Amino acid sequence: MKIVWAGSPHAFDVSDRISKLVASDPGFRKDNRSTLSRKELFKNTLRKAAYAWKTIVELRLSEEEAAKLRFYVDEPAFTDLHWGMFIPAIKGQGTEEQQQKWLPLAYKMQIIGCYAQTELGHGSNVQGLETTATFDPQTDEFIIHSPTLTSSKWWPGGLGKVATHAIAYARLIVGGREHGVNGFIVQLRSLEDHSPLLGITVGDIGMKFGNGAYNTMDNGVLRFDHVRIPRNQMLMRCAQYTCLCMPSDALYLDKVLDVYSIAFASIAVMLWVSQVTCEGKYKQSDVPRQLVYGTMVYVRQTIVADASCALSRAVCIATRYSAVRRQFGSQNGGPETQVIDYKTQQSRLFPLLASAYAFRFIGEWLKWLYADVTRRLQANDFSTLPEAHACTAGLKSLTTTTTARILTSKNTKTRAIVEKLRAPSKFSTSPWMFELHLVPVDSPFLVEYPVDPTRHGCGIRTGFIGIHRKKKRPGQRSSSSSEQIVSPLSSRWSPLEEESLPAEDKSLEERLDGIEECRKLCGGHGYLCSSGLPELFAVYVPACTYEGDNTVLLLQVARFLMKTISQLGSSKKPVGTIAYMTRVKHLMQCRCGVQRAEDWLKPSALLEAFEARAARMSVACAQNLSNFDNPEEGFAELSADLVEAAVAHCQLIVVSKFIEKLQQEIHGKGVKQQLEVLCNIYALFLLHKHQGDFLSTGCITPKHAALANDELRSLYSQVRPNAIALVDAFNYTDHYLGSILGCYDGNVYPKLYEAAWKDPLNESVVPDGYHQYIRPLLKQEICTARL
Amino acid sequence: MKIVWAGSPHAFDVSDRISKLVASDPGFRKDNRSTLSRKELFKNTLRKAAYAWKTIVELRLSEEEAAKLRFYVDEPAFTDLHWGMFIPAIKGQGTEEQQQKWLPLAYKMQIIGCYAQTELGHGSNVQGLETTATFDPQTDEFIIHSPTLTSSKWWPGGLGKVATHAIAYARLIVGGREHGVNGFIVQLRSLEDHSPLLGITVGDIGMKFGNGAYNTMDNGVLRFDHVRIPRNQMLMRCAQYTCLCMPSDALYLDKVLDVYSIAFASIAVMLWVSQVTCEGKYKQSDVPRQLVYGTMVYVRQTIVADASCALSRAVCIATRYSAVRRQFGSQNGGPETQVIDYKTQQSRLFPLLASAYAFRFIGEWLKWLYADVTRRLQANDFSTLPEAHACTAGLKSLTTTTTARILTSKNTKTRAIVEKLRAPSKFSTSPWMFELHLVPVDSPFLVEYPVDPTRHGCGIRTGFIGIHRKKKRPGQRSSSSSEQIVSPLSSRWSPLEEESLPAEDKSLEERLDGIEECRKLCGGHGYLCSSGLPELFAVYVPACTYEGDNTVLLLQVARFLMKTISQLGSSKKPVGTIAYMTRVKHLMQCRCGVQRAEDWLKPSALLEAFEARAARMSVACAQNLSNFDNPEEGFAELSADLVEAAVAHCQLIVVSKFIEKLQQEIHGKGVKQQLEVLCNIYALFLLHKHQGDFLSTGCITPKHAALANDELRSLYSQVRPNAIALVDAFNYTDHYLGSILGCYDGNVYPKLYEAAWKDPLNESVVPDGYHQYIRPLLKQEICTARL
Ligand SMILES: Cc1cc2nc3c(=O)[nH]c(=O)nc-3n(C[C@H](O)[C@H](O)[C@H](O)COP(=O)(O)OP(=O)(O)OC[C@H]3O[C@@H](n4cnc5c(N)ncnc54)[C@H](O)[C@@H]3O)c2cc1C
Ligand SMILES: Cc1cc2nc3c(=O)[nH]c(=O)nc-3n(C[C@H](O)[C@H](O)[C@H](O)COP(=O)(O)OP(=O)(O)OC[C@H]3O[C@@H](n4cnc5c(N)ncnc54)[C@H](O)[C@@H]3O)c2cc1C
Ligand SMILES: [Ca+2]
Repeated sequence: MKIVWAGSPHAFDVSDRISKLVASDPGFRKDNRSTLSRKELFKNTLRKAAYAWKTIVELRLSEEEAAKLRFYVDEPAFTDLHWGMFIPAIKGQGTEEQQQKWLPLAYKMQIIGCYAQTELGHGSNVQGLETTATFDPQTDEFIIHSPTLTSSKWWPGGLGKVATHAIAYARLIVGGREHGVNGFIVQLRSLEDHSPLLGITVGDIGMKFGNGAYNTMDNGVLRFDHVRIPRNQMLMRCAQYTCLCMPSDALYLDKVLDVYSIAFASIAVMLWVSQVTCEGKYKQSDVPRQLVYGTMVYVRQTIVADASCALSRAVCIATRYSAVRRQFGSQNGGPETQVIDYKTQQSRLFPLLASAYAFRFIGEWLKWLYADVTRRLQANDFSTLPEAHACTAGLKSLTTTTTARILTSKNTKTRAIVEKLRAPSKFSTSPWMFELHLVPVDSPFLVEYPVDPTRHGCGIRTGFIGIHRKKKRPGQRSSSSSEQIVSPLSSRWSPLEEESLPAEDKSLEERLDGIEECRKLCGGHGYLCSSGLPELFAVYVPACTYEGDNTVLLLQVARFLMKTISQLGSSKKPVGTIAYMTRVKHLMQCRCGVQRAEDWLKPSALLEAFEARAARMSVACAQNLSNFDNPEEGFAELSADLVEAAVAHCQLIVVSKFIEKLQQEIHGKGVKQQLEVLCNIYALFLLHKHQGDFLSTGCITPKHAALANDELRSLYSQVRPNAIALVDAFNYTDHYLGSILGCYDGNVYPKLYEAAWKDPLNESVVPDGYHQYIRPLLKQEICTARL
Repeated sequence: MKIVWAGSPHAFDVSDRISKLVASDPGFRKDNRSTLSRKELFKNTLRKAAYAWKTIVELRLSEEEAAKLRFYVDEPAFTDLHWGMFIPAIKGQGTEEQQQKWLPLAYKMQIIGCYAQTELGHGSNVQGLETTATFDPQTDEFIIHSPTLTSSKWWPGGLGKVATHAIAYARLIVGGREHGVNGFIVQLRSLEDHSPLLGITVGDIGMKFGNGAYNTMDNGVLRFDHVRIPRNQMLMRCAQYTCLCMPSDALYLDKVLDVYSIAFASIAVMLWVSQVTCEGKYKQSDVPRQLVYGTMVYVRQTIVADASCALSRAVCIATRYSAVRRQFGSQNGGPETQVIDYKTQQSRLFPLLASAYAFRFIGEWLKWLYADVTRRLQANDFSTLPEAHACTAGLKSLTTTTTARILTSKNTKTRAIVEKLRAPSKFSTSPWMFELHLVPVDSPFLVEYPVDPTRHGCGIRTGFIGIHRKKKRPGQRSSSSSEQIVSPLSSRWSPLEEESLPAEDKSLEERLDGIEECRKLCGGHGYLCSSGLPELFAVYVPACTYEGDNTVLLLQVARFLMKTISQLGSSKKPVGTIAYMTRVKHLMQCRCGVQRAEDWLKPSALLEAFEARAARMSVACAQNLSNFDNPEEGFAELSADLVEAAVAHCQLIVVSKFIEKLQQEIHGKGVKQQLEVLCNIYALFLLHKHQGDFLSTGCITPKHAALANDELRSLYSQVRPNAIALVDAFNYTDHYLGSILGCYDGNVYPKLYEAAWKDPLNESVVPDGYHQYIRPLLKQEICTARL
């Protein structure tokens, strides 16, 4: 099962080695984060970032390994933005000359960059940015300026204290005319003494949610006072500004979107030259010159991949602790019942466990889709692009609408219908590049290692899974550091783990709610920082903030659904994940064939129910929309319903991909059966949770719903004996998990006890403040005390 | 509306005065909490607690005012436990002699107490506690001992660093025989130098979730090494151990519970003498000697009341910020759209606003119920006690089952059927007492002050609600400190604000999810500590932890529902909030009469739908249960469904009490209409969210559901113009709200900007760590750097 989770034996091997390397190196210790003051915390992060870099250089890690190392260091740092936003932005939006100048400096960290887009008053809506970049033909420079308070850059990670350079987004003004928002490379600090350059005011924006968590990062504020930069520091290949969401005005464009195009859109960003010449001319070609992919994708992919880990970590903690924790039900002085044996606990925990797997697999599928489309594009094969089937706007819609986190320019040029697609003219081969065309396309659902069920199942059902477990597995965790770390790897390219598709975005939200639910499932102790759950929650909260715009994204999916329905009569056939709409007639009238509870285990029954629900909800929305004279008004008015229809569609995708995976060959004794149980739990849990959708659209009857519920209960009993094995399969080290409640050996109580004494408050037995504030109370001297 | 929210003109007056007093006193500043280190934070809390006490004493505040002051200081502190747990425990469980000895010391804070029940290995299940109290007849002492690691006391607030005394719960052992868990007053620290006494190991358990938040509190760990205390420090009147939940084994008792008894149970705790004589005899009378109320209730009431504020605070922040924040939709360079105008934002925010009001009113109703039952009991009038109508077990069930957070003893004596009830023999009249019989029973829904809709509605719909608003209300916030603070008040007794009834417990959970949803509604800035939302969330998370046991509580409600149904044929008629079950025949077959969307505004239509849903879900569960041979097994197996039925019942109560309130007279222009809109939003939102319940039980058809949804949309538009006024009605000072995003004048951006610079990281422009960790990176000297 570990291999299934990791994706491939190779991926397992790399993860396993690197995670153990990090875990065994005291330089990467992270259990003290919650007690450090802001300054100590930040300084410690600086140290770790330098130490990680040193380790990478000294051990000559491959880029795949280096990326994994940063991942397992598991601490938000300025390097995330440098590698994840600054470099990709230059690669994606810089001209060749710009790349040649800046990338080598960045690769060697001779400069450290950040990505400064968001402003105090402007987040989701990038077109509202106020920072200006005015061209001065006299000096051949741009003057970057923050005209208002709300134009202060606000949020960029790494900006506050570390970054020497920024990609800053600003409204381009040439000869008094505005040309939309563009990116500029601006130096912020002296490379000699790190002091801010003239005209630059820069600082940290202050404390964020949680202990440790994102407070390791110097999210910053930045104001420009007429800062001059050379003309060639405007990112000249920029036209589509990559960003974290979609403007609402784009909702009203006449566009085509389907799930393929959404996935594709996050791969392929249409770029063309927009230039300012030294004479002060602004030029932009009408036709995109290049199709570049693999730029901002990398950023979003890491955001999504990080968040996708979060749920599995929380589930791992809650599951292990639920087997250790005992409350009530003791008979004749025997041990109490493990709380994992309570049905109410199971009905909250196991759907989350199933979701962790479901999200992992949809991520793998996206990776595959991603690679597949990329490969075809390289071969000039556009046959799989849904746009080929879609409206005449063709790829124009792709560039303007794109996915979750790519913004359209308001510039009308960017909305021009693009008739032609050209293959990328050139690929960079720098080892620091994250271009996707080099990703090896391995079978996404490869399973090779057999799983030993005796080991996984050991002592869970009947036995004691607490402190003794360690003894049952002697030496198992200690061999890591002595293993050969730096092996020559066949591929130097890290496959992207996941991609942001609406289904993923939806699941993001579920994951976050899931972390909090896991914390609750741990009772009081889940509230301690040493449980790891508070920080896990706080760190992934920002991912959820991008989700604010998830609403907007889902509205786009809804718009695509409406479009698909409106075109059902035409020659444009829905393909890919929306192909079920071709059967809309059938789906509008089909009846659920389930007669006994077990019938719900048939993939066909599940799929049809989910397809019918999604189709009927979409059709209902389309009908309601048609009652409005003004479609835009109707869309705004019905937006809450449209979002629900979009959710139904996305859930169908996740369920169907899970089912598809199980139709493939899966090695390992019992592995497939366990996954089938999880798949059924996932689907039937969704069905129960969203019963209202299924019933109101008549897809199922109350009787069917009751049978589904019966089946769900019996599935919980089936997953119970394997629950621990299923979270062990994540193969997380105790270091990475960072949770006493979730520790591998189950030795929870002694560890909690020991950790408590490390709190700074315990440095002295009588607390600081006793003489000033407690003693006067006790001695009735409060009125004369100086407070 | 402010008066409606506050409950009465008097309550408004007190809250208003005291909140402004606290807000205007720099000694109570709390905006720096997130940047303080653990030790600074804690010390600062010690200072504030002493300062609050000084203020109370110097200004001679009444107890009502003192309680409000502690409330508005708004910082978890050891005093919460001292006043809220330690004193009530002595009053509830101590003999008269014990009370005479300990209470005066406690009232004057000559000793500081905590409540030490939970152990490392034992939380919900108090009967599993391992600490022992062995009677030594030779010295007439008890020996308190922690025999195992898991028996370490763990969590008690105030224990770690401050408390000089504890009520510690331990298994009583007399002459080698065990007599269940009892409470003991144990001195922990020297009153001279605060050092722990011999045999006592005590410390803090470490960092908890969030910045500031509960880290101001010294939740502690405590181990006893054969600590000796005099015999008379066992709480001799103890038999029912008050605690935060209900053991699962109690689920299987044959008992009667209804909502009245649940509410009542949390008022009336049956106590009787259990004593250890100096000869080492353990005595316990079979018949309770006294009916004492107002003991632990006070604790639970404050927990619930605190949490009930949390949602309204979060809603206030999110609503105000949603009116300030603008994103997208700018036409011709005009301002962008206020995000509160997006339907998706409304459909997430307005139900929470409506919930804030719904929970407030159910709280008021509980207060009324509470006072009503109390008064009747004093007059020996038991006619309103549902137990009078119920099974022969009578009040026995009350004492053994009780509500959410009162535990039954496993001692079979405590399960004895109690046939008689006696009125309390005596009332304490200490001004520090929280006895409930003195609560003035004011009309719970009194509204006297008219609301000026011009003021509340000002400029919300069309105008700019940001920075200008301040100017519209000149001087409004500054008059507070000069007002007369200490006025002679007619009543010295603070009415309890809310009581914990299952409906309340359920709403607790919703409130917490609500806080997090409000944070998301604020986009990126909600993630900053200065938004106030992270701390609000983290502080109320523990309330949610008690909620872990909420599942167990809901199972009790479910058991009561099952019992009611099984007795429907008998002469025992359901009364009070369960009275609808008398119409179960009708409810099982009634059809929803809604034909147009507006029909859903009829209270009768709403009520019948909610009643039918609750009744049908209960009946369905009862039917499923009857299929099991072993009812206990059936109950365990179906527990997830039973919880859903209990939720349906609780939601019905909240909806029906909201409707009832609106049938009373409500003064103030437009106030009633606004409340009606909120009530309808609350009910229809629940109906939409739980559509599956309503549809699967056939209470409504898909058509009805669609009409409800249509109506909901139009209600959102109606509440929009009043949204700001509706949160202003909470009358929260900026100090109490503690949120820049939610500040009254809407001047969000300048304040955020200013606050950022106060972060410790901004003390220097070049960060600490630059020379060691950043410069070597930039200068390519990493391999030689010392890291
Ligand atoms: C930890 C963290 C790190 C960050 N790092 C960076 C960084 O490195 N660089 C950078 O440039 N930025 C960064 N950001 C900023 C981030 O990109 C923005 O916060 C994010 O885009 C959300 O935008 P917002 O805050 O403007 O939300 P808002 O748009 O203000 O959202 C507020 C509410 O309005 C709603 N809303 C907005 N528009 C619409 C609409 N059209 N229709 C319906 N509802 C709408 C939203 O759903 C939400 O409920 C970071 C933020 C965080 C929290
Ligand atoms: C901030 C804070 C302050 C506190 N202050 C104090 C204090 O001052 N004094 C004090 O004595 N204690 C205090 N406590 C402890 C608190 O009372 C317990 O943490 C609380 O009762 C929860 O119990 P638990 O941690 O044992 O949860 P557990 O019972 O271990 O819960 C774990 C999981 O098991 C489930 N579960 C447990 N029993 C059952 C069952 N029978 N059926 C189904 N599911 C079940 C729960 O629902 C939960 O999901 C405090 C706790 C916190 C977080
Ligand atoms: Ca989301």
